[in-house]
Amino acid sequence: MFRVTISPRLRMTPYHESTVAAGATDITIYNKMVLPLSYGDLEAEYDRLINGVAIWDVSVQRQVQLSGPDAHEAAQYFTSRDITKMVEGQGKYVAMCDHAGNIMNDPVLMKLSGNRYWFSIADNDMILWCKGIAAEKGWDVEVTEPDVSPLAVQGPKAEDLIAELFGEHVRDIRLFRFIETDLDGIPLVLCRSGWSKQGGFELFLQDGSRGNELWDLVVAAGEKYDIGPGAPNHVERVESGLLSYGGDHTPGSNPFEVGMGGYVDTDTDVDYIGKAALQHVVANGGPERVFVGLNVDAALDEPWPLPARTPVTVDGDQVGTLCAIVHSHRLGRTIGLAQVNRDLVESNATVQVQTPTGLADATTQSLPFI
Amino acid sequence: MFRVTISPRLRMTPYHESTVAAGATDITIYNKMVLPLSYGDLEAEYDRLINGVAIWDVSVQRQVQLSGPDAHEAAQYFTSRDITKMVEGQGKYVAMCDHAGNIMNDPVLMKLSGNRYWFSIADNDMILWCKGIAAEKGWDVEVTEPDVSPLAVQGPKAEDLIAELFGEHVRDIRLFRFIETDLDGIPLVLCRSGWSKQGGFELFLQDGSRGNELWDLVVAAGEKYDIGPGAPNHVERVESGLLSYGGDHTPGSNPFEVGMGGYVDTDTDVDYIGKAALQHVVANGGPERVFVGLNVDAALDEPWPLPARTPVTVDGDQVGTLCAIVHSHRLGRTIGLAQVNRDLVESNATVQVQTPTGLADATTQSLPFI
Repeated sequence: MFRVTISPRLRMTPYHESTVAAGATDITIYNKMVLPLSYGDLEAEYDRLINGVAIWDVSVQRQVQLSGPDAHEAAQYFTSRDITKMVEGQGKYVAMCDHAGNIMNDPVLMKLSGNRYWFSIADNDMILWCKGIAAEKGWDVEVTEPDVSPLAVQGPKAEDLIAELFGEHVRDIRLFRFIETDLDGIPLVLCRSGWSKQGGFELFLQDGSRGNELWDLVVAAGEKYDIGPGAPNHVERVESGLLSYGGDHTPGSNPFEVGMGGYVDTDTDVDYIGKAALQHVVANGGPERVFVGLNVDAALDEPWPLPARTPVTVDGDQVGTLCAIVHSHRLGRTIGLAQVNRDLVESNATVQVQTPTGLADATTQSLPFI
Repeated sequence: MFRVTISPRLRMTPYHESTVAAGATDITIYNKMVLPLSYGDLEAEYDRLINGVAIWDVSVQRQVQLSGPDAHEAAQYFTSRDITKMVEGQGKYVAMCDHAGNIMNDPVLMKLSGNRYWFSIADNDMILWCKGIAAEKGWDVEVTEPDVSPLAVQGPKAEDLIAELFGEHVRDIRLFRFIETDLDGIPLVLCRSGWSKQGGFELFLQDGSRGNELWDLVVAAGEKYDIGPGAPNHVERVESGLLSYGGDHTPGSNPFEVGMGGYVDTDTDVDYIGKAALQHVVANGGPERVFVGLNVDAALDEPWPLPARTPVTVDGDQVGTLCAIVHSHRLGRTIGLAQVNRDLVESNATVQVQTPTGLADATTQSLPFI
């Protein structure tokens, strides 16, 4: 277990003081910022997410903003999904690919207006990609990282809490839809979204100086729902089959190979980076690898955070890559996420993975588990 | 003090087992990899660097490789320095700027051949920048991250140790020059470089499976020099005025504002990104801010790692940004690094910075301190 040194190269979030006061113990670094991962009681944090409501500092989900007359053209070019019909106030889960069709990020793209978009990104500097290409294209678009820091409110009681804070009208906000609003004058974008399948909202704070104030307002109103601190939850996200970009797949994977096939449009007239390569994958019978769940025949008495991907094997030969393995509280068994050869999944073969008690058999299944 | 959770999204280095065995206690995350920062005895680590020899795992310094017929054209376009006269086996400290002349990274550019270059980069995903632009330009160049992980051997006794390992001829290698060689068959590039001013080499391991083997060979040969583990040293780098890209300056700084004016060529025929903007800075009398040392009138009894940049003020008005403050063992006083308004430096004004014992006066001076 290492101590982490925080230096000016890394950024703390607008909610940092609140997360420290709430007892954050474990963190990671994500987009060069501090992402709290636990407050010392993983079971309570899981329970809160599944049965109650939790507040998460997810400021690390940075925004790459495209603004200007060519913002739409640029947003489309960066996105392997047809966004022609997107409306203002709508978000879409998208893949951003390179020219060879390899996935580079899996953001939620949000359309704030016809000439302003946000990519709410996973862990890498997509701003460099967007900025470089936009400049070379000569587009009239500014590519910036705005002062926007999401705070997630997740769990089955999140909607009641958000309705209490913002009004009953928020119940009508559909998944990935958002409104620009404020809370006691704190400007924010309120979106029905979040990296869990338990429902909830993300408050995209638009004034970094007011993070702790926003946190306190949400916690105060949340007291009657027994709100407590939490973080993107590793067990729940495995159960729900949510992708952790950068962790869950081998480099050089196309979107089909990370379970994002449903979010790729290859039969479209719009132009985007990697389109020809992705069309080629489809025309040639589909991807070589697929992203699946594993039911593992081994008991995990302790949480077993996987520090690095490990091989999935059949008779000692590597047939895939294990990227997560947890004890599912709700399923009462050991489950994992893996990227494996497609033929293997189609043949329903038994595979092997390494566990603390040795090599264990596992069978594949489609995602999500729950 | 936080614990850091290591997950498959973050990478451990080829020397990871060796650094754990050597007792690494404190780390940071840099280029989404684990960078050991201390082995629990900062004074011994400093002493070893200044008076002996230290081994550092600096794998996080990733390479962006350009290879192919257009590699030279691409390398030049990404670099705000004329590289026309670079020869094979030569490295150069360079700035990479965006189209507005803002610095985006400060790598060492290494010319392996006329059609193969490495940018040995600081902490961000420059590969996205290079890959996107190269593809849009239609250049015949591959942009990849090769399997290359530097191991630094630093300190006044480093040359003797490296000569013992590789032969006397290494004494003729000049600063930033390198050779392709091997150690017991382990392929590597040996370069006279490293993020200290104490002299030494970096061994750019070219086979990630053999990191611990390389570490052991260096440590075994280094025993007679009392080699020990260390890391990029915060105190020494402040004394030497070495830039920590991303930590030492406010975003949107041009190379002149981070002390890299000497590495920028504006009076050249070659074409590179940001050239017009940098020429404009020069034509308009130079940068608004400069990167300087501060002599601070306060005693730091304890190490005082600055977790975030803080203001430099004059009578309460912000005139700059403090990015590091340490007790210099060799100077016997408190020193810092700051980016401040240029007129202030020219007028030799006294400024104020925050310290653990309150606001303290400070005077500016040019870098390095030593």
